[in-house]
Amino acid sequence: MALEVKALPFTFVAHALAIAGAILVLVWCIHFRGGLAWEASNKNLIFNIHPVLMLIGFIIIGGEAIMSYKSLPLKKQEKKLVHLVLHAVALILGIIGIYTAFKYHNESGIANLYSLHSWLGIVIIVLYGIQWIYGFLVFFFPGGSTTVRSESLPWHVVFGVFVYILAVANAALGLLEKLTFLENSGLAKYGSEALLVNFTAVVAILYGAFVMLTVIGQGPPAEDDYSYTAI
Amino acid sequence: MALEVKALPFTFVAHALAIAGAILVLVWCIHFRGGLAWEASNKNLIFNIHPVLMLIGFIIIGGEAIMSYKSLPLKKQEKKLVHLVLHAVALILGIIGIYTAFKYHNESGIANLYSLHSWLGIVIIVLYGIQWIYGFLVFFFPGGSTTVRSESLPWHVVFGVFVYILAVANAALGLLEKLTFLENSGLAKYGSEALLVNFTAVVAILYGAFVMLTVIGQGPPAEDDYSYTAI
Ligand code: HEM
Ligand code: HEM
Repeated sequence: MALEVKALPFTFVAHALAIAGAILVLVWCIHFRGGLAWEASNKNLIFNIHPVLMLIGFIIIGGEAIMSYKSLPLKKQEKKLVHLVLHAVALILGIIGIYTAFKYHNESGIANLYSLHSWLGIVIIVLYGIQWIYGFLVFFFPGGSTTVRSESLPWHVVFGVFVYILAVANAALGLLEKLTFLENSGLAKYGSEALLVNFTAVVAILYGAFVMLTVIGQGPPAEDDYSYTAI
Repeated sequence: MALEVKALPFTFVAHALAIAGAILVLVWCIHFRGGLAWEASNKNLIFNIHPVLMLIGFIIIGGEAIMSYKSLPLKKQEKKLVHLVLHAVALILGIIGIYTAFKYHNESGIANLYSLHSWLGIVIIVLYGIQWIYGFLVFFFPGGSTTVRSESLPWHVVFGVFVYILAVANAALGLLEKLTFLENSGLAKYGSEALLVNFTAVVAILYGAFVMLTVIGQGPPAEDDYSYTAI
């Protein structure tokens, strides 16, 4: 891949979609759902942290981490650092986000891990963590031999793309699952809140699609042989 | 992209997921939902054609069309023909599938095009049709100049990947939307049918993810300069 299509313009569209998605999920959870709280007698406010952290923290920051090699006018080593730090931030916010879903369930007496969304979620965060640790060890510190690095790199990309597609799909699934719960408790099926949640899911999927396009697209010229853009 | 990871093994996984997805949607619509019919007093049987044609006809056959350059041990020209014919079949089955959703709505007195799923669906099928016609004219008959072809090719891939990601996401959205409707009319939320529909959506997303991986992966060696594998 990556011959004639430049990745950079796709990163601009993706950043715009990221901002739109972040605003949508905040408007939803704060304006429509009553706000965010770590401790509260209204347990729904604890749950509200989950979509915000998963979408902004995990999906959006994780996508920016993926795009960093294509979006930033920096040296290879600097981009590597940005990539690895952003993925660590995404992973940590993702773990806290999942924790809040458990916290909400426990404090409200709801069973844990009863849905496909939750099982997929556990699988995804575990795979994401493994991918991060493997990448850190092989590409950063202590770092593998040149052969190990160059043989690992395409698999790192393929596995990363795979996990990221699942993550975006699972976020959309979570949004629609929550919407279903709300509709079952009386939310208007074609009211403005339902529309907002559906649009948030669509923006998340569009964002994921543009992140994928930047992976296929061509990065800036490589400065050394061992380079992401060489894949 | 496409240096060291071979696409062929991914195509095997994708074929297996395609078979699983086809069986799941057939079991759902025939065993759980009462079967398929073009004319019936029970209008639900008309609707049932919609998911079957969209998943098997549009998503699965469309995915096989995308993979054909990587999955088949054929000459370039033959693969091109397979690619273009499979996409035509997917497009036609997709159009018939959408028609059945309208037919069901009209015969049951339900409004058309009230959901995000349906709007996205129209956008996707139109883009798919445009992509097919453009590809046919430029790469098949009458065919553009070598420059036009080689400059169009990466955009053909990027646009195709983009539309295909949206299509898979929209199919998952449709499955979850229908499940919501059924749950609102009393279907058990964690019964076997709900689990089956959720699994169908997950298999469809996994299939789409593997189709994307074959696009990133490396095809067989190119026989001529102007080749899909050259991107
Ligand atoms: C890729 C991002 C996401 C991951 C990895 C993820 C993961 C999880 C996990 C592991 C649970 C189980 C918690 C428990 O059983 O106590 C959960 C629960 C939940 N999540 Fe997410 N989530 C994500 C995004 C979202 C988003 C954006 C929403 C939107 C509202 C959402 C809605 C829910 C709901 C409603 C629950 C409680 C019901 C259930 O367990 O299915 N999730 N999530
Ligand atoms: C990419 C594949 C798909 C496309 C392009 C698509 C497209 C469409 C369109 C255009 C409509 C509107 C018909 C009307 O307004 O009269 C529709 C309706 C519908 N589709 Fe799909 N569909 C797809 C896959 C699916 C799947 C797999 C299901 C699973 C059950 C599904 C469930 C529904 C439902 C429940 C409706 C009626 C309610 C509504 O209009 O949203 N769709 N679809």
